[in-house]
Amino acid sequence: MLIGRLGAAGSSCSAAASLRPFSSSSAMAKSKFEYVRSFETDDTCLRNCYIVVRLDGRNFHRFAEQHQFAKPNDDRALGLMSKSARSVMEGLEDITIAYGQSDEFSFVFKRTTTWFKRRASKLLTHVASQFSSSYVFYWKEFFGEQPLLYPPGFDGRVVLYPTGRNLRDYLSWRQADCHINNLYNTVFWTLIQKGGLTTTQAEDRLKGTLASDKNEILFSEFDINYNNESALHRKGTTLIWEKRDETVSKHIKRPNEEEKQVPVTRSRRKVEAYHCDIIGDQFWEEHPGVLQDDT
Amino acid sequence: MLIGRLGAAGSSCSAAASLRPFSSSSAMAKSKFEYVRSFETDDTCLRNCYIVVRLDGRNFHRFAEQHQFAKPNDDRALGLMSKSARSVMEGLEDITIAYGQSDEFSFVFKRTTTWFKRRASKLLTHVASQFSSSYVFYWKEFFGEQPLLYPPGFDGRVVLYPTGRNLRDYLSWRQADCHINNLYNTVFWTLIQKGGLTTTQAEDRLKGTLASDKNEILFSEFDINYNNESALHRKGTTLIWEKRDETVSKHIKRPNEEEKQVPVTRSRRKVEAYHCDIIGDQFWEEHPGVLQDDT
Amino acid sequence: MLIGRLGAAGSSCSAAASLRPFSSSSAMAKSKFEYVRSFETDDTCLRNCYIVVRLDGRNFHRFAEQHQFAKPNDDRALGLMSKSARSVMEGLEDITIAYGQSDEFSFVFKRTTTWFKRRASKLLTHVASQFSSSYVFYWKEFFGEQPLLYPPGFDGRVVLYPTGRNLRDYLSWRQADCHINNLYNTVFWTLIQKGGLTTTQAEDRLKGTLASDKNEILFSEFDINYNNESALHRKGTTLIWEKRDETVSKHIKRPNEEEKQVPVTRSRRKVEAYHCDIIGDQFWEEHPGVLQDDT
Amino acid sequence: MLIGRLGAAGSSCSAAASLRPFSSSSAMAKSKFEYVRSFETDDTCLRNCYIVVRLDGRNFHRFAEQHQFAKPNDDRALGLMSKSARSVMEGLEDITIAYGQSDEFSFVFKRTTTWFKRRASKLLTHVASQFSSSYVFYWKEFFGEQPLLYPPGFDGRVVLYPTGRNLRDYLSWRQADCHINNLYNTVFWTLIQKGGLTTTQAEDRLKGTLASDKNEILFSEFDINYNNESALHRKGTTLIWEKRDETVSKHIKRPNEEEKQVPVTRSRRKVEAYHCDIIGDQFWEEHPGVLQDDT
Repeated sequence: MLIGRLGAAGSSCSAAASLRPFSSSSAMAKSKFEYVRSFETDDTCLRNCYIVVRLDGRNFHRFAEQHQFAKPNDDRALGLMSKSARSVMEGLEDITIAYGQSDEFSFVFKRTTTWFKRRASKLLTHVASQFSSSYVFYWKEFFGEQPLLYPPGFDGRVVLYPTGRNLRDYLSWRQADCHINNLYNTVFWTLIQKGGLTTTQAEDRLKGTLASDKNEILFSEFDINYNNESALHRKGTTLIWEKRDETVSKHIKRPNEEEKQVPVTRSRRKVEAYHCDIIGDQFWEEHPGVLQDDT
Repeated sequence: MLIGRLGAAGSSCSAAASLRPFSSSSAMAKSKFEYVRSFETDDTCLRNCYIVVRLDGRNFHRFAEQHQFAKPNDDRALGLMSKSARSVMEGLEDITIAYGQSDEFSFVFKRTTTWFKRRASKLLTHVASQFSSSYVFYWKEFFGEQPLLYPPGFDGRVVLYPTGRNLRDYLSWRQADCHINNLYNTVFWTLIQKGGLTTTQAEDRLKGTLASDKNEILFSEFDINYNNESALHRKGTTLIWEKRDETVSKHIKRPNEEEKQVPVTRSRRKVEAYHCDIIGDQFWEEHPGVLQDDT
Repeated sequence: MLIGRLGAAGSSCSAAASLRPFSSSSAMAKSKFEYVRSFETDDTCLRNCYIVVRLDGRNFHRFAEQHQFAKPNDDRALGLMSKSARSVMEGLEDITIAYGQSDEFSFVFKRTTTWFKRRASKLLTHVASQFSSSYVFYWKEFFGEQPLLYPPGFDGRVVLYPTGRNLRDYLSWRQADCHINNLYNTVFWTLIQKGGLTTTQAEDRLKGTLASDKNEILFSEFDINYNNESALHRKGTTLIWEKRDETVSKHIKRPNEEEKQVPVTRSRRKVEAYHCDIIGDQFWEEHPGVLQDDT
Repeated sequence: MLIGRLGAAGSSCSAAASLRPFSSSSAMAKSKFEYVRSFETDDTCLRNCYIVVRLDGRNFHRFAEQHQFAKPNDDRALGLMSKSARSVMEGLEDITIAYGQSDEFSFVFKRTTTWFKRRASKLLTHVASQFSSSYVFYWKEFFGEQPLLYPPGFDGRVVLYPTGRNLRDYLSWRQADCHINNLYNTVFWTLIQKGGLTTTQAEDRLKGTLASDKNEILFSEFDINYNNESALHRKGTTLIWEKRDETVSKHIKRPNEEEKQVPVTRSRRKVEAYHCDIIGDQFWEEHPGVLQDDT
């Protein structure tokens, strides 16, 4: 029997160097253990719902410090996030839209997707894994010679949304979060970097302020109109698939003709990035293919 | 209102450069969307069960070919898998044992773990993410100058086991799988590399053979005793935490004494690797701390 | 300690008649066991989805025979099913529509219901329990002196539907099922009861026939237009809430006036039954309040 | 087409009395809707765990008042609960133990059960339904001519326990709850019924008292030793399957012999009731078959 053979005398780790090896029943032994497969549970996502996978950087506060990220926004880091998200999206066409800000990125699978049979664990790990390996793989492209000190981690979750309205509200929630955090961080670091305050002083200054107060501080004290700040920082990054015409020149040789170069235009789907408002209707009206009709 | 402000006239992507910016109600707007959080479902793992996360390489057949992995086993690739698993384990002490073979690795959380509040999605993505980023991060350590061509992906699943017996049967199942595959691959590639067969001929030769037949082919035709083959290949890799004594010398300076060096021995928990049978009882008797009592 | 006290010497079932009883630590003992509550899992239904609970009679083929149900339809049994469904619905106003046929009934909770915090197990058992106790309670009202021989059982399931279209398709599916079964049963029992065939002969006669063939048999051989058969049997029973004006006469006595009777009309929500098509649009257009908008 | 035919002109509820009915495509129509089945989710209970279904009476405080239940315990009501539980258990042999007190009953399925393929919703509704219909069905047996005023409801939940220890702790929790409540209720109603206090006075008297205080009140003021009170009330009801020998006399007629009566003893499994401590070890040692080994 397999168990006997494998667990031979002596240490369980020493090779059993018998003259003629036997393992006639190993297949049988495997089948004896196979019952453990039935402990797997079905985690199929409810049909006809949008599937959102959101990733968040783990301990990225510390990660950002150790890698000297610029404050309040590090464009290299944001670029690497988007590049990694793009890498995930290009491998999974059923992701119709992705939205990212700071150290988080959300991926939306179309409601009718049958990728991985809609198994939550598979969708989740595929996205988390591909994103993480891409983050390390493309690090150099954004950080150049600055070394990555250790492999970073991202954790994720799956959430289902039954209607287009719910999904848009989800994305609006994330963009409103981006707005609130970025406004705070912009004022906070302006107070420090341009205003000469300490972090404690800046915190105290901002305690209890409303958005309008923060805008006012920027405007009246530092001559900054927040709305003119970088859209990437204010709005985050939205990735969608778009058809783009691509023109390449092709050599063509017809019978009785000279070979000639002809321009050939093909429509290709590509992932395009936007840094704009996705809370209002305009974005959705301009890109009607992103959401599917509820009916 | 936020929506109006953000979705200002003109393209949704143009910055609205009004004189004085307003966003007094953005916090309110965010709270309006926050209801979407309630769509998250609780995926807490049943208490007092062992939690197993298994990762599998995605399209690793192709990945192995593109990176010229040696056949039937590439020790660099196996080493990188173990290194990545170790990286996961060292970040999560509640993983008491991990077992890997080929392009898969299973991680076992102790039954009483409260990491991530036992949320399946968190445990799953943390493991998948950390493993994937480590795989890219440590690539060079094992493959040297051979470049990694693209970021690899791993998918994962979570399975719960209520008893120590069920868990051991799970691990036995994976090791029996390792055994069957490795025996097949060893004979298959020996027939090709030493016997001069084509892959089709080797396949035909092995069709319908039992384990004993395969052992016999190796033994009588190639003078190979399968049991003497590399334990790493036959048994896979088992990682567990072990207390190891570490002796370091410390400089000590007592009053009225000269400074001197003293050896100081401390017990530290380290991840240790085994390549041995884990189907029989011996391994478990030798490492009683790995499993927790069912009672 | 509680355990000692409760598990006193002698048989565990004999009362321990000590002079002065002690149980000072029973509350503490209970708290020691309370950890078991944490094994309950959250089964909250995804928000903004219609929640359908469907009940099916268990072994109702046998139940029908033992209680001599008329063939192909027993109006007493169908009446009792509807009465029981109505009893469930009147206790749960968030059930906006229920549909029943044969020994099954489906209950649809509005998508925004917060009954039982949307916990699937609670919704499920409440419906199953109330329906079952009502079935026995109201038996006599439909079956008179014919005794109920044993307590019947119903099992249930919960299904979520994200959109109104999905929900309507669910109800259409059940009504199409009703149609197919009732057409078959009508012809089958007509062939036996009026045509003098045995059950085997009737089965053979119907093997492979289409709906049109069955209609033709009824029409040409028995002069029966299936469409004129009882709508209750052909369409099943649909229960919805409707506002109905109710006029009651009230005694009113104003100062310096004689007491007089005045008719007072009040609008009350009542459960109304329909036996009509719910596959087409008409029913839904006539009762727009049943479905909630997807947006 | 079915839809057209069913949703004919005129009210959706009027029968469409066309000359020759058509429904050739009804089967096709049904298949068009059948996709809705794929929205059902798998709710299989984790293997090798004990499955507990607990039922609780809904609004039983009110139900008890309306049916004049005796205080603090009504033996008719407790008897009916046990009878209903027994009815559930006798229909499901895989329930190895059930425990009830007050208006609740817990049913424990053996850890290896495959009833209803371990589908939680099926187990749950079967128990809730059978219990509820039995409660009404057997009402008269316990309450005689006192009428049942309306059909009662019970709601339920499913909880899984991975080990025998966890399961015993669950049952201990319920029995400790029984103890605490019954001790309180016994003193409370004694103060009222024998001590002449109002309910408010009794509540005040008991505020903040420990179990020992309550025992002392009963003992010193009313000469009642709580431990001599009814075990049914103090310990609740435990139902288990037991083998019992049954002797019946059979008429036997052998060739060339006279017919004679012979006693024939057969072992039969029956549900037996206990009112004893199940927190300590003794009960479990005396009935070793109830729990299954964890290994």
